[in-house]
Amino acid sequence: MSKVIKGGTVVTADRSWRADVLVEGEKIVEIAENLSGDEVIDAEGAYVIPGGIDPHTHLEMPFMGTTAAETFESGTFAAAAGGTTMLVDFCLPGEDGSLLNAIDDWDRKSRDQICCDVSYHMAITGWDENVFNEMADVVNKRGINTFKHFMAYKGALMVEDDEMYASFKRCAELGALPLVHAENGDIVQELQQKYLAEGLTGPEGHAYSRPPEIEGEAANRAIMIADAAGVPLYIVHVSCEQAHEAIRRARQKGMRVYGEPLIQHLTLDESEYFNKDWQYAARRVMSPPFRNKEHQASLWAGLSAGSLQVVATDHAAFSDEQKRLGLDNFTTIPNGTGGLEERMAMLWTTGVETGRLTPEEFVAVTSSNIAKILNIYPMKGAITPGADADIVVWDPTISKEVAVSTQKSIIDYNVFEGMTVTAQPRFTLSRGDVIWAWGKNSQPQPGRGKFVRRPAFASASKALSKWKALNTPRKIERDPMNIPSGV
Amino acid sequence: MSKVIKGGTVVTADRSWRADVLVEGEKIVEIAENLSGDEVIDAEGAYVIPGGIDPHTHLEMPFMGTTAAETFESGTFAAAAGGTTMLVDFCLPGEDGSLLNAIDDWDRKSRDQICCDVSYHMAITGWDENVFNEMADVVNKRGINTFKHFMAYKGALMVEDDEMYASFKRCAELGALPLVHAENGDIVQELQQKYLAEGLTGPEGHAYSRPPEIEGEAANRAIMIADAAGVPLYIVHVSCEQAHEAIRRARQKGMRVYGEPLIQHLTLDESEYFNKDWQYAARRVMSPPFRNKEHQASLWAGLSAGSLQVVATDHAAFSDEQKRLGLDNFTTIPNGTGGLEERMAMLWTTGVETGRLTPEEFVAVTSSNIAKILNIYPMKGAITPGADADIVVWDPTISKEVAVSTQKSIIDYNVFEGMTVTAQPRFTLSRGDVIWAWGKNSQPQPGRGKFVRRPAFASASKALSKWKALNTPRKIERDPMNIPSGV
Amino acid sequence: MSKVIKGGTVVTADRSWRADVLVEGEKIVEIAENLSGDEVIDAEGAYVIPGGIDPHTHLEMPFMGTTAAETFESGTFAAAAGGTTMLVDFCLPGEDGSLLNAIDDWDRKSRDQICCDVSYHMAITGWDENVFNEMADVVNKRGINTFKHFMAYKGALMVEDDEMYASFKRCAELGALPLVHAENGDIVQELQQKYLAEGLTGPEGHAYSRPPEIEGEAANRAIMIADAAGVPLYIVHVSCEQAHEAIRRARQKGMRVYGEPLIQHLTLDESEYFNKDWQYAARRVMSPPFRNKEHQASLWAGLSAGSLQVVATDHAAFSDEQKRLGLDNFTTIPNGTGGLEERMAMLWTTGVETGRLTPEEFVAVTSSNIAKILNIYPMKGAITPGADADIVVWDPTISKEVAVSTQKSIIDYNVFEGMTVTAQPRFTLSRGDVIWAWGKNSQPQPGRGKFVRRPAFASASKALSKWKALNTPRKIERDPMNIPSGV
Amino acid sequence: MSKVIKGGTVVTADRSWRADVLVEGEKIVEIAENLSGDEVIDAEGAYVIPGGIDPHTHLEMPFMGTTAAETFESGTFAAAAGGTTMLVDFCLPGEDGSLLNAIDDWDRKSRDQICCDVSYHMAITGWDENVFNEMADVVNKRGINTFKHFMAYKGALMVEDDEMYASFKRCAELGALPLVHAENGDIVQELQQKYLAEGLTGPEGHAYSRPPEIEGEAANRAIMIADAAGVPLYIVHVSCEQAHEAIRRARQKGMRVYGEPLIQHLTLDESEYFNKDWQYAARRVMSPPFRNKEHQASLWAGLSAGSLQVVATDHAAFSDEQKRLGLDNFTTIPNGTGGLEERMAMLWTTGVETGRLTPEEFVAVTSSNIAKILNIYPMKGAITPGADADIVVWDPTISKEVAVSTQKSIIDYNVFEGMTVTAQPRFTLSRGDVIWAWGKNSQPQPGRGKFVRRPAFASASKALSKWKALNTPRKIERDPMNIPSGV
Ligand SMILES: [Zn+2]
Ligand SMILES: [Zn+2]
Ligand SMILES: [Zn+2]
Ligand SMILES: [Zn+2]
Ligand SMILES: [Zn+2]
Ligand SMILES: [Zn+2]
Ligand SMILES: [Zn+2]
Ligand SMILES: [Zn+2]
Repeated sequence: MSKVIKGGTVVTADRSWRADVLVEGEKIVEIAENLSGDEVIDAEGAYVIPGGIDPHTHLEMPFMGTTAAETFESGTFAAAAGGTTMLVDFCLPGEDGSLLNAIDDWDRKSRDQICCDVSYHMAITGWDENVFNEMADVVNKRGINTFKHFMAYKGALMVEDDEMYASFKRCAELGALPLVHAENGDIVQELQQKYLAEGLTGPEGHAYSRPPEIEGEAANRAIMIADAAGVPLYIVHVSCEQAHEAIRRARQKGMRVYGEPLIQHLTLDESEYFNKDWQYAARRVMSPPFRNKEHQASLWAGLSAGSLQVVATDHAAFSDEQKRLGLDNFTTIPNGTGGLEERMAMLWTTGVETGRLTPEEFVAVTSSNIAKILNIYPMKGAITPGADADIVVWDPTISKEVAVSTQKSIIDYNVFEGMTVTAQPRFTLSRGDVIWAWGKNSQPQPGRGKFVRRPAFASASKALSKWKALNTPRKIERDPMNIPSGV
Repeated sequence: MSKVIKGGTVVTADRSWRADVLVEGEKIVEIAENLSGDEVIDAEGAYVIPGGIDPHTHLEMPFMGTTAAETFESGTFAAAAGGTTMLVDFCLPGEDGSLLNAIDDWDRKSRDQICCDVSYHMAITGWDENVFNEMADVVNKRGINTFKHFMAYKGALMVEDDEMYASFKRCAELGALPLVHAENGDIVQELQQKYLAEGLTGPEGHAYSRPPEIEGEAANRAIMIADAAGVPLYIVHVSCEQAHEAIRRARQKGMRVYGEPLIQHLTLDESEYFNKDWQYAARRVMSPPFRNKEHQASLWAGLSAGSLQVVATDHAAFSDEQKRLGLDNFTTIPNGTGGLEERMAMLWTTGVETGRLTPEEFVAVTSSNIAKILNIYPMKGAITPGADADIVVWDPTISKEVAVSTQKSIIDYNVFEGMTVTAQPRFTLSRGDVIWAWGKNSQPQPGRGKFVRRPAFASASKALSKWKALNTPRKIERDPMNIPSGV
Repeated sequence: MSKVIKGGTVVTADRSWRADVLVEGEKIVEIAENLSGDEVIDAEGAYVIPGGIDPHTHLEMPFMGTTAAETFESGTFAAAAGGTTMLVDFCLPGEDGSLLNAIDDWDRKSRDQICCDVSYHMAITGWDENVFNEMADVVNKRGINTFKHFMAYKGALMVEDDEMYASFKRCAELGALPLVHAENGDIVQELQQKYLAEGLTGPEGHAYSRPPEIEGEAANRAIMIADAAGVPLYIVHVSCEQAHEAIRRARQKGMRVYGEPLIQHLTLDESEYFNKDWQYAARRVMSPPFRNKEHQASLWAGLSAGSLQVVATDHAAFSDEQKRLGLDNFTTIPNGTGGLEERMAMLWTTGVETGRLTPEEFVAVTSSNIAKILNIYPMKGAITPGADADIVVWDPTISKEVAVSTQKSIIDYNVFEGMTVTAQPRFTLSRGDVIWAWGKNSQPQPGRGKFVRRPAFASASKALSKWKALNTPRKIERDPMNIPSGV
Repeated sequence: MSKVIKGGTVVTADRSWRADVLVEGEKIVEIAENLSGDEVIDAEGAYVIPGGIDPHTHLEMPFMGTTAAETFESGTFAAAAGGTTMLVDFCLPGEDGSLLNAIDDWDRKSRDQICCDVSYHMAITGWDENVFNEMADVVNKRGINTFKHFMAYKGALMVEDDEMYASFKRCAELGALPLVHAENGDIVQELQQKYLAEGLTGPEGHAYSRPPEIEGEAANRAIMIADAAGVPLYIVHVSCEQAHEAIRRARQKGMRVYGEPLIQHLTLDESEYFNKDWQYAARRVMSPPFRNKEHQASLWAGLSAGSLQVVATDHAAFSDEQKRLGLDNFTTIPNGTGGLEERMAMLWTTGVETGRLTPEEFVAVTSSNIAKILNIYPMKGAITPGADADIVVWDPTISKEVAVSTQKSIIDYNVFEGMTVTAQPRFTLSRGDVIWAWGKNSQPQPGRGKFVRRPAFASASKALSKWKALNTPRKIERDPMNIPSGV
């Protein structure tokens, strides 16, 4: 049974044009004017865009002694309600350190719950021969082409420079892409101790102990290591000018570095932590913390300039009760905020409606760019014949105030609460199924989502490898006559 | 009669995939595996890419007391032989100053000669009410959405800052895009006089009198004026780090500025002017002149980083005899070099084969990006159903030494002479017609090319206008009580 | 009769140490512990610093149809009261265009009024052979080694790029230093017309029509022209990051460029123009206008980093009544504010007391640096044997609220009104004379001040000339065999 | 018995003037024209400058399994012969880890040998409570106000980020200045292993394994850590644009960071390592390695712009035989080159004679700046009454080819061999004693040198502490009503 999305303006990362979109089963089969199908989905007055991809979520993640409260079911349904049809979750090795077992765990957790498609980034939280070996299977057998490295969370997830180098080199060999959480974990810990020692225990201490310089430093370091290892690099949650500057500087040397700001950092600022209400401030605790407005301006410019490519959420939602674990000590407040459901609408409202971004750039940074980086384009991230029918009918006339009472996320608050967004998905399709329809009492369809396998050796990886091979240092050949005979 | 391009790998600015391309008449109608058509064009082992677009040529241009020797016929045929299926020529007002008459002139010159499609940029070489008025017709009636401004060539083409501002503002109103040749004409003239006065009359004086700082300054100035006028800006022939830095700096503030390096500046350096053979050096005289290798590295990085978007040629070819007009005085050597025929192959060889660029980036910077900037995408610059069948079957196995003896350009030398390129167009199609087939003794088909009309108000223009309108300074309302009663 | 300044801490640009200072007549003769002299000046608990030098004043300047209200008498007395013992005023050619006559005029105006020493910068407001010729006499006979160029005030003082180049080259020959007021006068005028046309006539329009980009552009352009002419450059009233960035970029290429922020731009911001009281806002109208706090941070960092060298005032004070000339049109509000009297105290309070500057840096940027740049160090700007006894006993324990009622300036308002400064001169000595003593009812001593002659060819000028001579482009020698025989 | 230095031009960091200098005992007592004394030192036609200070030497240092061959006697005599009158050597803790014992060791080694004055930097090569405690004594009892940290030499001298932070904080408390050797030791080691594994064992491998990015990264990291700890920072042997860029970026944020290029990096380039003669190349092995000419240009510009302050040598001289310890493995070639004797003459020749530096800047970067940074100005680094009579009569007419045969260093080669320098010390005075006289067969005077004690809390340290204290984050005071009652 076919569906035709009629009457809308298709917007891709390239262009916008009036056309209908015909869907057969899970795929887009035709884009043209005046198409017909068994079922009509009304897009009159709306945009027809590729479903959003959020490449940075932590659903049900065990972290800081608790587990992120958003489930794969609630998270993927909230995503759909917000116009996002795929998310990439971070898979963390368990106590046995095995990558493959961790994937099995994540599959077990997600399989029966997910309402839309997912994939995983694999975290490298230590280094040994087993990790080295398993990485090949992760890439080649499990279809995961990205590995995450934490430069912070010392004593827990953090890896050292030589471990990063080893893992990055392994990524280069396997055609995979390393990701980093860029903050200097040593110095974060030192500043945490300093502020605690001074009796500064509230959520504002979280922000003070993770200043922009600490993020910029780590970004800069990761870039150098990736360059030495000969591999592209993707820096998650770029929150500040310092990290962004490091990225720009690298790119201007021809290095292939990507940067991902979060919708939170684009729209919320550090004054949130100074709120007189502890719970209000604690809800906003995430790493990196929100920054001041100068940093926001830097991030926005990066999106239009192309030095930053992707807008994500780092959705890691903890309940009010969980946040209270850090009541006397900000370092034990579970780190994370939500955003999965609001990412698209918030970016449209503050980006497209203000003229900072074109509609095409909106599509690029919410979907197409990350699909290319993850090497799943145009299966995902595109409106083109043959692509998965992950499509959103995006209605720029629906205005809505963000409210916990109406959200699909199961968290008991929302960092965007009270803000008005000026667009919403009228319909969200995941591989041809309508999984969200505005005002139609849509319900979650757990278990219908699939795991998306991603092939290695994206085009940028291949180009960089070629360049590095051609430019590798050469041995100087010396005549034995010109070498002394020894000590 | 349909044609099917079979067995190749389609490469667009987005992606690469194995597919056949079906062409009906002038248009691409389908892209899929296993297509068939009336005629088969063999793409086995080759890439199938959008025809190149060279947005910067000066064919038969009256300049510096002579006329560029490359004709519309020879130029467009050379283009086709090199894989370029569209070029945008600069249309200069004549003595009457009328823009519309100039377009008529250019049409008259080009119409019966062009072998592939063309469009024009309109030059603004002075400012008055008539120019102001004609600009609307140029855009709305003649389909030209770009206006060129020369900041150099004092006493001839050069315009002053207030004229640029006026024209840029007019562009903003009309949804057109201003272009600039960025060199400080005042200081160029001063340095020319200085070197001539010192008896330094050879072609090296051309390079000395146009140092990078002079280009960077003008680029920086044009960017400020465009920002003040609220319009995007396109800077032609970006040859040096200084101009590139100004562009990067602007983009990082959210300004919408584009930069166009030339294939010559990417691959040739200033030492060419120091050649002991006068004629050799004079052939390379163009503005801006070639730079040193540090500048080349900057330009290459800009292409992969996205701070530069387009590779062009500024093809303005003068014969050896014409060059000798400046035998005793470098300032009278007609400025210009060729490159139309070699742009694609040189960029592939030095860019893609070295890993500096991916194949997709190659397509972006030779074709798709400029099509988007000129607002004719995806009619041009794309391999997609509905697009013009301007297609090149790009064969990465044909190696060739650049030689005057085999070139299609009618100029008696070639600045790339003796260099080996490692790819060539196997077939070049212009709106479905094969206009070049390697080794098949293709002949020019003058008069088959068409003028391409370009609509105003590209997406970036609209976004910028929205931003500027929202951020325009606001009047402070003052109570009459707080305003003194006068002097 | 000798004087000994006893018990203080001498602070120079180099260092701080406990010592007495012995003055004989007009000169410092000894610095050591336990000195004695005929008269004792008590410096117990205070710093002993070189008298401030304000290199940027406009006393009694005819401008915008009126004349700056601060006289040479009131201005130099206000200076003394604030710890400034020398100022450099801008000498503007009159209708006859003669530089030498202008100096005579300025001498006539100042001679009988000045309470402390002065010098002049000579303005170049047009270019012809007479100006070229007179410049030599200005430097060699009149002892003026600086020439000011206005890139703004179109139709009045503004010069074009080729005129600047010509004058800068002349400066290079004469060993003089060019100065620029850096704003793009063309675009300022365009924006003025735009805002007026929109009915935006209030003082805020002044700020809107002179945005930071316009200043940055001009600074960048002047730097390029100075580089082409082979001469150092001094940019007056650097008010924003854009101009500062251009300076830093130039310096990092080895260019010799100096930047002078004003005390106003370091401490006041653009919100002043949004004041609901017209007169309040109009009093702050000066060019460039005050900027936002990000720009302030840039300027402060420049002072400690050494990329900016001098803090001045651009003291050009117009009365409330004069300001009302622009009641209906901000472009006719006379441009200028005061600051001569508060410069030292404001900088101490906001710079040294906050730790942004060391006491030594305070001395450097208020006195020693400009003395070196003007090539009159250590006659001025130093506490060293042989130097002029221009000395301030600077008391960091006197706190004072800036108030019109107590100021020595004759203007009827003060842009720092109501602010508290935490240091004041206890005594100000000019060539050995006490011209100001806190709380002692000091009176102006008009006519005691002298004109300070400044020699050409400062050390940086000589070094730059040497570098430029060694690096001048060289002619390529070509065998006649390799030069064609002509057209 | 007094000495008068007659007929010369005194050059300081501030200015140049004709004057005689009168020395009584160890001190300068007067500077004026026409002085007389018991003994006349002829300075006719020469400059009279402060003795050079080389703040970076490793004499007789145990390192990499051997001991630097230059002794305190030969080193200090070579220094004197080159116009350097003070050097600061690096004191490394021995196996017991005690800082105080290390100082005793160094004293024992140096005391009877030194011909001129010395001081030490204390190295922090690990962190524990004893080090923390001893640091106070090092500063307050031993007069050492600088602590060196190695970010490279993993497994030997290297410290981790948290150790650096702890030590930097301790420096802040004590008013001391941390120094860093900035290279990422982890990545250096990885690259060393990589190249060795590829069979690339020659000296060029040393350069390949320590690319500029690795230095830039470490510099950037150290700067962040210093900023977090609230202390100024001095980066030794800045060899490349990357490290210099990090310094400039920091300074432009108001951070107090100093950079020290070496004379070797200013004048020699990486091609030295590609020499076909193994021994030639091995002699040049030092860390960081020599860089290409673009980096040299960056360093030179930094000296004139003020973003780099000091020119040193890192004199650590190993004999040919010692170098052959790394015959089969570049990682075991002892790192180090000489330069102590040539620093002044090479910098004069390539800096002042070319116009890159003024004579005053030459004095600043060879002597005065480091004296200020080390808080011993004007006892050292100045020509002023009361200063130590460490004076050089600098003769710009003595041209000399650098040659092992004539050098005073006892090393069997010289990295500047064959180069011509165009100035030499005619006389070198150390605290009033002539310790070198050109052409007079001067002999070392071992044991006459003294250890120079340096007080803590230099002016920049105090200012920074004040700024940090004023800008420390503040606790948000929350009403108990607004804090939840617990989990
Ligand atoms: Zn993270
Ligand atoms: Zn995360
Ligand atoms: Zn041009
Ligand atoms: Zn052109
Ligand atoms: Zn001015
Ligand atoms: Zn002024
Ligand atoms: Zn070192
Ligand atoms: Zn060292």
